[in-house]
Amino acid sequence: MMLQGWTLPQSDTGRASILTPPPWHYSGEIIAVDFRADPGVVAALLPPEIEPAGDGSCTFVFADWCSASDTDARVRDDPARGQYKEAYVVCYGTVAGKPVGRVPFIWVDNDLSLVRGLIQGFPKKLGQIAMTRPVEIGRGGVRKALGGRFAAHVSSLGRRLATAAITLDEEHDKLFPRGIATPLVHTRLWPAVDGDEPAVHELSRGTIQGFELGTVFSGSAVLELGGSEFEELDRLVPTEVGRGYVHSAAFSVVGATTTPAARLPETGASA
Amino acid sequence: MMLQGWTLPQSDTGRASILTPPPWHYSGEIIAVDFRADPGVVAALLPPEIEPAGDGSCTFVFADWCSASDTDARVRDDPARGQYKEAYVVCYGTVAGKPVGRVPFIWVDNDLSLVRGLIQGFPKKLGQIAMTRPVEIGRGGVRKALGGRFAAHVSSLGRRLATAAITLDEEHDKLFPRGIATPLVHTRLWPAVDGDEPAVHELSRGTIQGFELGTVFSGSAVLELGGSEFEELDRLVPTEVGRGYVHSAAFSVVGATTTPAARLPETGASA
Amino acid sequence: MMLQGWTLPQSDTGRASILTPPPWHYSGEIIAVDFRADPGVVAALLPPEIEPAGDGSCTFVFADWCSASDTDARVRDDPARGQYKEAYVVCYGTVAGKPVGRVPFIWVDNDLSLVRGLIQGFPKKLGQIAMTRPVEIGRGGVRKALGGRFAAHVSSLGRRLATAAITLDEEHDKLFPRGIATPLVHTRLWPAVDGDEPAVHELSRGTIQGFELGTVFSGSAVLELGGSEFEELDRLVPTEVGRGYVHSAAFSVVGATTTPAARLPETGASA
Amino acid sequence: MMLQGWTLPQSDTGRASILTPPPWHYSGEIIAVDFRADPGVVAALLPPEIEPAGDGSCTFVFADWCSASDTDARVRDDPARGQYKEAYVVCYGTVAGKPVGRVPFIWVDNDLSLVRGLIQGFPKKLGQIAMTRPVEIGRGGVRKALGGRFAAHVSSLGRRLATAAITLDEEHDKLFPRGIATPLVHTRLWPAVDGDEPAVHELSRGTIQGFELGTVFSGSAVLELGGSEFEELDRLVPTEVGRGYVHSAAFSVVGATTTPAARLPETGASA
Repeated sequence: MMLQGWTLPQSDTGRASILTPPPWHYSGEIIAVDFRADPGVVAALLPPEIEPAGDGSCTFVFADWCSASDTDARVRDDPARGQYKEAYVVCYGTVAGKPVGRVPFIWVDNDLSLVRGLIQGFPKKLGQIAMTRPVEIGRGGVRKALGGRFAAHVSSLGRRLATAAITLDEEHDKLFPRGIATPLVHTRLWPAVDGDEPAVHELSRGTIQGFELGTVFSGSAVLELGGSEFEELDRLVPTEVGRGYVHSAAFSVVGATTTPAARLPETGASA
Repeated sequence: MMLQGWTLPQSDTGRASILTPPPWHYSGEIIAVDFRADPGVVAALLPPEIEPAGDGSCTFVFADWCSASDTDARVRDDPARGQYKEAYVVCYGTVAGKPVGRVPFIWVDNDLSLVRGLIQGFPKKLGQIAMTRPVEIGRGGVRKALGGRFAAHVSSLGRRLATAAITLDEEHDKLFPRGIATPLVHTRLWPAVDGDEPAVHELSRGTIQGFELGTVFSGSAVLELGGSEFEELDRLVPTEVGRGYVHSAAFSVVGATTTPAARLPETGASA
Repeated sequence: MMLQGWTLPQSDTGRASILTPPPWHYSGEIIAVDFRADPGVVAALLPPEIEPAGDGSCTFVFADWCSASDTDARVRDDPARGQYKEAYVVCYGTVAGKPVGRVPFIWVDNDLSLVRGLIQGFPKKLGQIAMTRPVEIGRGGVRKALGGRFAAHVSSLGRRLATAAITLDEEHDKLFPRGIATPLVHTRLWPAVDGDEPAVHELSRGTIQGFELGTVFSGSAVLELGGSEFEELDRLVPTEVGRGYVHSAAFSVVGATTTPAARLPETGASA
Repeated sequence: MMLQGWTLPQSDTGRASILTPPPWHYSGEIIAVDFRADPGVVAALLPPEIEPAGDGSCTFVFADWCSASDTDARVRDDPARGQYKEAYVVCYGTVAGKPVGRVPFIWVDNDLSLVRGLIQGFPKKLGQIAMTRPVEIGRGGVRKALGGRFAAHVSSLGRRLATAAITLDEEHDKLFPRGIATPLVHTRLWPAVDGDEPAVHELSRGTIQGFELGTVFSGSAVLELGGSEFEELDRLVPTEVGRGYVHSAAFSVVGATTTPAARLPETGASA
């Protein structure tokens, strides 16, 4: 039988595949904190194709997403399938002189998103993410408004990896926070099982449409990064914590462009 | 050492107690479906102090809460502590001729809420709850607006207990959905470990302040209840499914009033 | 209707109650580490009825339990119901000159066990516990034998609370490790909702039968305790780490004896 | 910087990569049930390279694994990393006349195992798995011995997918249960993001060493398969349930051999 399905598991119908191809749509709530880390560490996390910004600038992002797929109505229809939280760090650099972001580490709480991320080059692992969800009435929660205090944290394998809090003190009209607005350059990497060279090794940029932000609030922020036997996030311990941002964001991924990844530097200079 | 703490664990400081006393504040998002079940089954789930409504009327409620406590700032400050989802059924009856609701079964995904519920008489167990979270921009999710389709489900010990979906077709100005607006009468029950009679057995009503609703949307609904070796929810299988409701809700619990529960019926008539 | 059920939820059948009365049976695998903490802190965690040992001696215990109930076959029949892991600390003292243990803090990953614990006076919260499970064949795991390295950890709300490892270097014939063999004295505490005094406040000792140990292995150990906004465990940071123990254990709880807890010290001497 | 790491995430050190290359070692406890399903459905789940057995024969397997890696000591050292449970179905067929097994569907509770599986061609999704863990003393659990009743179940996204129970009535000396002993043929599939053809599409067989079984017990079995919007497992609803098996198993995966997968049938007959 020819099997159907964009990903595993395949079958004659393809109905059980964990993922169908893009377009994929995302609408979410963001809690993000700009910070600086040791520029040498940031450089050590970038592939040779990305020139480090040099100032150690990074953003730690928490996101609570609702996602949908043009090719699978179940993703939006079942909240257990398409909704998830994730936490990641963006390091900044340039490619051909233009600003790009790189996500060296990311954790997510949903397997569809984990696989969808790996396919795009997001290096996703599972984690537990908690984020302040704003409320509109009553005294049980926090308003998305000046004075509101938003907190978020992520842990994995029982280790707290990042803890952030932002107290909103400014409402912006036309601000595009760097953490969400900078184009990301990923490495798609999938190992071979019968040879040393990867089966897939390419740089990838998502093709984004319909990028949209809600009202952006910003505020003073705290950010702590913690250690784990399995992670390297704490090498990016903040030397300086910048502003924090709370806002809605939305976009669609309709595809991607790829180029072969540099496996061996030509001169060895960047090794 | 005299130990401090409203609940276990106690210590000299009481700082680790899972719960501090009210006032407790709640702000949440509700997805609820009115339905009718076998009136005999509904009657079988009510204590003798509550007269069954007789028509088998019930509401299945999903709620995504943010909670806070006047006596413990950590509940609101850490989203992993004060935020949670729960799912429950309300059966309707009367006490002294006035309408009351009874929650025979409820599942929650947070231990603070589980214990806070048991103390009030909510018969909480752990469950996994998923609910459509509305979005304000983009195509990744559903708008809380006419035409929006909201879904929710709860499972426990790997069994799907309830699945609901509502397609919003009406916006209300001054509607108080029965599932959230009817006063609840609970049974506080805590066993003895060295005797047959319970250590605590009393009827309890929460003292509610600041009850508030956001805009109420309603729509046509579907509701399915499923079985489990550990549950009786499916005895309430809908004979008729009514309207569904999607709205914000908020209130505070500032205390409760209690009366001893009837342990033995005087005439046996209600046994 | 007179409602049935030893605990909530009650119904005409009582079939959905989360718990039925003892006898309860336990068979489990233990990973435990003896240690000493600041004797003043240990004293601060004991109720006035327990005289501190004075040397700050404690044991941190991880346990992977299978449990059963004479009054509910479902507990043993469904592995998702009766099986669970927990992690707790035992502090040592005396009552009337006889050694007792006190569990000031405990975390568990199962709601039945959480409620069963609270009823007995174990101050249970939810946590995530991981423990080395020994294997009998192959190279995928660790043998319960000399040279085997057993590890365990517990986290709650994304914070690592305790991490232990033991390398087995001795097999014992007739050793009863203190952490599992010392009788425990709990405080049963259940708040009132309409008054200041607790509804239940009593000291409780389980009535244990059929206590049994498998072969006990011991070894050199490491133990780290970590902090959390919600916990006080790290006040017990080890000043000295003793031996670690790995063994099977089993017993039955057939009831308990209780005495009223001291609410106000007569002389204030122990406050 | 040339980045290191067999999988994502990569860095200059490669220390955070979720996975390092084989050899990988596995030691586990198996609960498995042989059954027959509609032969037409089984055939519809096999790739064109596998000839269906024709009799609809399958095995449903639950496994509780401890795993280790020669290239990453952390996998064995931290029980939260290398230990996991999984549940899968094996369908039987032949390649070049020799018996092979195919795993069309599998669920696992650990992200390292999920990615390690996808790389080998196991179509893993996340699920919650519960399995009777045998005990050696006491009355809290079940003995791995004649008369013991072993149960297991798996759920995903709140739907119970499979429920099994086996009552042991025979101990075997030299039995190799088909579910664990048949060589598996997987499809490694990884999508492209900028084209229609998969980036990786090949058949793969693991290179197994050190295969070992503990004492095999068998017994009469029950097996129920359930439905989910996201799965097709219930198409394999048992038409006949065979024997169940409980035993330890161990092996090492030291590599794999692959061949390109058939993308287009030569005659179209099987499309």
